Parts: sequence; structure tokens; C-alpha cells
Amino acid sequence: MEKTIEKLKELTKDVVLLEHAIATLSWDQETYMPPKAIDEKGEQLALLQGMLHEKITSPEIGQLLNDLGADDNNPAGRFESNLPTDNAYIKETYRQYKIQTRLSKKLVTDLALATSLSQAAWIEARRNSDFSLFQPHLEKVLNLTKQKAESIGYRESPYDALLDEFEPWSSTKEVADIFKSIQPWLTNFIEKIKKAKQVNDSFLLKDYDISKQEIFGRKVLQDMGYSYDRGRLDVSVHPFTTTLGRDDVRLTTRYQKDFFKTGLFGIIHECGHGLYELGFGKEVQGNLMASGTSLGIHESQSRTWENVIGRSYSFWRHYYPILQTYFPENLKDVSLEDFYRGINKVKPSLIRVEADEVTYNLHIILRFQLEQEMISGSLSVEDLPEAWNSKTRDFFGIVPDNDANGVLQDIHWPMGAFGYFPTYALGNLYSAQFSSVMDKEIDVNNSLENGNLIDVLDWLRKKIHIHGASKTASELAIDITGEKLNPEYFKKYLENKYKQIYNL
Amino acid sequence: MEKTIEKLKELTKDVVLLEHAIATLSWDQETYMPPKAIDEKGEQLALLQGMLHEKITSPEIGQLLNDLGADDNNPAGRFESNLPTDNAYIKETYRQYKIQTRLSKKLVTDLALATSLSQAAWIEARRNSDFSLFQPHLEKVLNLTKQKAESIGYRESPYDALLDEFEPWSSTKEVADIFKSIQPWLTNFIEKIKKAKQVNDSFLLKDYDISKQEIFGRKVLQDMGYSYDRGRLDVSVHPFTTTLGRDDVRLTTRYQKDFFKTGLFGIIHECGHGLYELGFGKEVQGNLMASGTSLGIHESQSRTWENVIGRSYSFWRHYYPILQTYFPENLKDVSLEDFYRGINKVKPSLIRVEADEVTYNLHIILRFQLEQEMISGSLSVEDLPEAWNSKTRDFFGIVPDNDANGVLQDIHWPMGAFGYFPTYALGNLYSAQFSSVMDKEIDVNNSLENGNLIDVLDWLRKKIHIHGASKTASELAIDITGEKLNPEYFKKYLENKYKQIYNL
Repeated sequence: MEKTIEKLKELTKDVVLLEHAIATLSWDQETYMPPKAIDEKGEQLALLQGMLHEKITSPEIGQLLNDLGADDNNPAGRFESNLPTDNAYIKETYRQYKIQTRLSKKLVTDLALATSLSQAAWIEARRNSDFSLFQPHLEKVLNLTKQKAESIGYRESPYDALLDEFEPWSSTKEVADIFKSIQPWLTNFIEKIKKAKQVNDSFLLKDYDISKQEIFGRKVLQDMGYSYDRGRLDVSVHPFTTTLGRDDVRLTTRYQKDFFKTGLFGIIHECGHGLYELGFGKEVQGNLMASGTSLGIHESQSRTWENVIGRSYSFWRHYYPILQTYFPENLKDVSLEDFYRGINKVKPSLIRVEADEVTYNLHIILRFQLEQEMISGSLSVEDLPEAWNSKTRDFFGIVPDNDANGVLQDIHWPMGAFGYFPTYALGNLYSAQFSSVMDKEIDVNNSLENGNLIDVLDWLRKKIHIHGASKTASELAIDITGEKLNPEYFKKYLENKYKQIYNL
Repeated sequence: MEKTIEKLKELTKDVVLLEHAIATLSWDQETYMPPKAIDEKGEQLALLQGMLHEKITSPEIGQLLNDLGADDNNPAGRFESNLPTDNAYIKETYRQYKIQTRLSKKLVTDLALATSLSQAAWIEARRNSDFSLFQPHLEKVLNLTKQKAESIGYRESPYDALLDEFEPWSSTKEVADIFKSIQPWLTNFIEKIKKAKQVNDSFLLKDYDISKQEIFGRKVLQDMGYSYDRGRLDVSVHPFTTTLGRDDVRLTTRYQKDFFKTGLFGIIHECGHGLYELGFGKEVQGNLMASGTSLGIHESQSRTWENVIGRSYSFWRHYYPILQTYFPENLKDVSLEDFYRGINKVKPSLIRVEADEVTYNLHIILRFQLEQEMISGSLSVEDLPEAWNSKTRDFFGIVPDNDANGVLQDIHWPMGAFGYFPTYALGNLYSAQFSSVMDKEIDVNNSLENGNLIDVLDWLRKKIHIHGASKTASELAIDITGEKLNPEYFKKYLENKYKQIYNL
């Protein structure tokens, strides 16, 4: 059996290599590609996606999985390996094999081509704030996505099949239940904050020299333990992290001259993703376990760094005096306390990526509900902008001034990534749950006040990163915190933090 | 038959897309890749090369070629298509199919992996000027290269098989004969120049601000008709041009602060390659004809721009006053005439890429002779440094001070590109031959004096670029100049130019 597993690992190693090659082309597309290259880049990506599909669905892999006894009832196979991660590996391989064998090569390449073109159309549509330029593309992508869900199959709703791609071993019902529990709580909590005295953040909207922003951001990156030996930081329209090799995990960010938060917190956020990808242990390297176990867990890492660490008072006890020396004209008269409150200002707003950590999850719940309706067919793409605007009014009490600031703001639907959004909210919840334990096990505040970010990295690495996809999201939560995902941690985290900031 | 050709074109389109994907990974490796990513990059490239090999050798392609009647005696097939380029297309496809089917997948992936590692070792060896670090890698690469030649087969010598990869439809004997004709002539010509009064180029060795060098270089690039819509210019250790898509041809260069010529003439040279790749006509796009027809012809384009245009008096009549405004401290007291003579200084030297256009071809003939000996087995890798040094003394009257400035200076052998070097010299010869006709058909000097580089581009595009690989190198030479490659044009070109510079 050990030999069968070795053979399987060899075959899936090629899958990983090809995924990294595809990531290289995609990274190039977002960073350095000349504009007219886009059409053929789409064709190249479609070809490689098709080849990847062929690799992961190869009959040899099917035969080996069969030999190992993996099936729908026993995805981890029917024997126990000496290596504890082997059964997890079989389980993950079987999951991917199963999904991919149920997708025809034609559907995979059609989707790759359609989403490449729809992303280009979306950029134009967003630039002109004209949804109609994007509508036919989204219709096509949505239609292919529905075919995808039907091909994969599902237990209760087509959305289950889509969610599983990003949050394996989860279910629509589970997510919906959790969201149902936090939505009224959040609305209520926001109402309380609205009644409190608003904090001042006008000093964040001044002129912040971009090259200085970059230098400061790179300083924090380095302190977090990120090294240019195994990565890069570049600029792109939409910040992202991508893995081009086991020793090649790259980040991008964007800077806004008159909005300090975008660049720095973007860098810290992406670096959180990057450190996860760079921290996989030897046991899971080189095969399908060398990946985040779910996007929810991935996002828990970026959000822990961005919010729990990067927006904490202790973090700025160390960094704020340094930041003041970078931007004395903007910050010399702003106290640490005021700066801390400013970067944590809560205010309902239109743009998800600029949302504070209290209102953020409502942006997600809005998208989760809309995409469920689109997938079920109860909402047409034509009616999407109106539905978006109406729900924004319900949730936030405001209406987008145009589609660019509304329904066109996110790249996910253009990419065909339906089922992706909920993982952002799950990430926030996992982050709060994990952090509550981290706080007990190490003296986080003391480390941060001394500018030591490595203690946090070490804890995350040992508890989460090292395992890659060899433990599921729920298994990690149970191992670390003794229970499955529980939104109460998140509520408690917000209460503790904002009670103090807003004197609630 | 038209349908058979269409089907074949569809299949070979994937080959081109995959080649461009591979080029993307290689470009990344040379420009932006973090250092520790190299090992997996080698594995990724080996995998993709293997997949490319599978594509081009697919039984469907073999069957279609067979249906079209293509074989060793009739590589262009046995029927005449309505489209004149179709038979050329069949011929080129058959050539590549034949070569690749004769290489085992194992040999292709072994070579990809070995050359990737040998390039890394070569960088180290060169940095330390220590050939022994590179020797075992070169032995391995050479051994695999010999296997490659044997697998492909050849008419007279194994070197024929290697040369054909870079200079299709040429032969070792043809090249050797041409080199035999120019070698004594060059030696004699250089002796004459040595006796003449040497020109002064000390002003080129002053401090030239690199960012200004780049701005000036980009200005010339734009005037040449190169656009960032379809390309980029980046910095790499070794300048190169690579095609990542039909609308994506990228250049790299390197700048030396104290040696003005490297950056600018490097940019012009690479841009010559780039314009060729960007100029393929609609008829040859999207399949195996969308490529330079041979590296000799490719080099004729880069050398025409670099030397015939970029080192001409007329070119600098327009650009020199502009350059003087960029670097007044270095050039204000240097006359146009002195500048022109300085950039055309002839002096035997150690480094090929810095060689003037008179001595350059001797560097090539040296390498051509050494690699023939290595392939035939009469020279061992162990003895290569000594052979290099001894031949350098014979040809140039000087001996390398160390291996970094000698046998380790070029990337070609580390890349496994045996049979490549002669195409540089062929390029110089073709360049002189084509230019003699261009001079008759358009008033080149008048255009250049007025800063108009587009007339030259238009002529090259119409005569050469547009055809891609649908005409062989010899066919192009005959169509444009009425005869096959004839080294007399080159001799005449050098005589005319240097007679004046050195008062011979």
C-alpha cells in the first residue's frame, strides 16, 4: 500500500507543478503583462487548465485511488497508513479527483475562457460604471457555473457543490445557520456604535507619500518573517497572494495616496496568506496537501494578521512612534490613542475591501444571499444591480451612487468564483476563535509591544500552517480550541475591542 | 485537403500556446523570480517541456501529416494548396514533428532538468570564476546533447542535427565553408586596422547615470516602432528577447554605469529581435510559422538595427545632439565624428558580447570550432578551458585573465544550446546582404538623418518579418537579393565603413 501511495504522490506532484505554472501566468497577467496580450493569455490559461484537468482525472490516479479503497463513503481509503498524514492525503486527492472527473474537459476550458474574457469586460464595465458591458459575460459565466454545480452533484442545493471548492467538507446549511446567528447581532451592535460618539480618522485621509508607504509596509513585512528569498511584493489593481512554487509565494498590494489604510493593511493581510503558504511542513510538501485546507482557514490567517494583530493597540505601541517619523506632517499631533481609534473606525460603507471589521461580515452575507439566489435561478443577472442596491439599503442604510461602487466592485463573480465570498466571513470567525486560544498560550500583547511578531508567527505555524490540508478546517478548530466553528468567539472579540473604543 | 490542414493548424496552435506559456516561466526566471524558487522552476519547466513534446509528437499530428503526403522526400506534402503558405506550413510542421518524434520524452525532460540546474551552477561558477563548479554539469548536458543528435539523426555529422534546430535547412559543411572564407579575411583586415591609428573611446567609459541611459534607450525604442502595448523592457543579467504571446514580445537589457555602449546597443539589438516577432503577417499567425525562420535571420534583424542602423553616422546625425543634452558633462566636448568613431572602435577583446562588429565573428568561429570538437568527442570538457585559452591567443593575440572572462562567459552551453553560436555570424552576414538591397530601394541615410526609423522598419517588415517561417533563410535571401548567403556582402560592408573610420 505504501508503494501505491508513493506512486499516487508522484502523479499528483505533477498536478501541483502545473498549478504553479498556471499561477505564474495569472500573476503575470495581473502585474507585468502588456495590455494587448490579454486575449492570447486567456487562450494559454484555458489550455493549461484543460491539461491540469486531464492530469488530475487521469485513469492511473483513478485506479490507484480505487486500489487504496477510496470511495464516497471512505474518501480517506480503507486501510491505515503508518504515516498519519497519508489518509488525509488520500482523502484530499479523492475529493479533487471526484470533482474533476465529474467536470468535462469542455466545461473546464469553456469556463477558463469565459472567465478570462469576463474579467476583461468587468474591468471596462467598472471603469465606465456600466453594468450592461459586463452583464452578458456574467450571464455566460453564471450559466457555466450552474452546469458545473450540476455536474459535480450535491446533497441539498447546487450551492453546496460550489462552496465545497473553497470550503471543503462544509455545507450551505451550516454556513447559512452561522450567518443567521450573526446577522441580527451585527445589526444590533452597529446600531449601538452609531449612537456612540464617532471617532475621528481625518488624519488618515491626508497626503501619504506612496514610496514612504511602501518602505514602511516592507519593514512590517520583514518583521512578520516574510523574506524576498521566497517571495515578492508588487503592485496590482487588486491585491492578492499567489503560490508559484513551494519557495515562491508572491504578494501584491495597491497604495492610495490619500487613504493610508489601503496599502499597509493590504500588505499585512496578504502577508498573512503568504506566511500560511510558506509554512507547510515537510510531510505535506510537494503534493495536494501543500495548500491551505480551506479558504476560510486561509482568511483566518490574513485577518488575524490584519485585524487581531495589525489593528491592535499593542502593535501600534511599538510601530506608531516609527510611523510618526515617516509622516511627521500628518501624525505629529495625533496621539497613539487617537490613531488606534481612527484605524478602527466603524461606519457602514459601500466598499467591502475598505469596510471595518464590524460591518465587513454584512457585506459578505449580502453577497452570499445574492449568489444563492442567482444560482437557484430566483434572481436574474439583469435584475442583479437593483437587488444589490436594495439589499445595501436594507443592510447599511445607504445606496451605491453608481455600479462601480456597488455591484461591480468585486472581481469574484467575473472570475466565476461563486461560493467564495462566505469564506471571508468564516475567516473572521475562525480568526477570533483561534486568537482566543493564542492569547492564553502566549503573551501576545507583550510580544507586540516589543515589536516581536515572530512569536505570533511561530504559534500560527505550529498550530495551523505546518499541517497544510492534512487537517480539515473543523479538525483544526477542534484540535486547537476544543470545538467546531462557533460564532460566539467573534462576538466576544468585537465586544471587548469596540466597547473600549466607543465607550459602549 | 483544406480541412486536413485546418485540423493540423488547430492542433499546432496548442503547441504555440504551450511554447508561449513556457516562455512566460522562463522570462519570470530571468527577471522577477525570488532566488529560492529556482529548484521548483526547473521541475515546472521540465514538466511543461515534456507536455510540449507530447503535443507536437501526438499521433493525430502524425496521421494528418501522413494524409497530406509529408515525408522525408516531400516535407512540404504532396499536393498544392490554394494558399501559398500552406505547403511551407506543412514543411515546418513536418520538420518539427520529425525531430521531436525521434526524441524520447525521457530525453527531453532529462535535458530540461539538466540544463536548468547547469544554468544555476554556471552562474555560481562564473561568479567565482571557477570552471570546476560547472564542469560536471556541462559534461552531463553535453552527453545528453550527443544523445539528442544521435536520436534525431543526420546526414554527415552529429553537429548537423544540432544546427538544424537553430538554422533549419542549413548544414555544418555550408557553415564551415563560409567561415573558412571569412576567417583569414578578417584576420588580415584586423591586422590592417591594428596598424592604423587607434580611435579614442575614453569618453564612453565615464560615469553614465543609469536612469538617464534607460530614458534615452526607451526613446530610441519608441522611435523604432516598439510599443508597450505589446511588450516590455526589463533588466536581466543576460539581455534577451522572448515571445510570450502573439501580442506580447518582451525585451531585457542590462546597463553598465561606466560603459555606455552595453545598455543602448543592447536595447536596440533586442528590439531588432522583438520587431521581427511582432511583425508576422496574418497568414502565418497562430501556428508554427509564427516564428523567425532561423536564428541566423533573427540575428540579421537585431544586427541590422544594432550595427547597420544604430552604429551608422546618419543615425547619430539625428540622435547625437539629443544624447549630448542627456550627458553634457561627458559629451559636450566630443564631436559627432569622434563619437561615431568611438562607438565603432575595433579592438580584439575577450568578451563576445562587447566585441566590435569586425572582431565579433572570430569569437563565433572560435566557439563553432570548439563545440564541433566537443560533439565529435575529440575535445573533453575537462580540457575545454585550456583549449579556449589557446584558441583565444591564436585568434586575438590575448589570453583570458580568468575563466569568467573566458570559457564561462556565455550562457549557451549551460543552456544546452550547441549549434546556436554560428547563427550569430550568419546573422551578421545576412544583415550586410539584405542591407545592401535596402540601401538601393530606400534612402536609408536620409531617413536616419531625419530621425525617421519607421522607413527601415517598414522595409524589413515587408521583405522579411511578415513571412515568419513561411520562407526559409535561403529563400528569403534569394527573393530579396537574388542569391543565397554570400559572405562577400559582409566584407564589402566592413571595408566601406572602416576604410573611412581608420583611413585604411
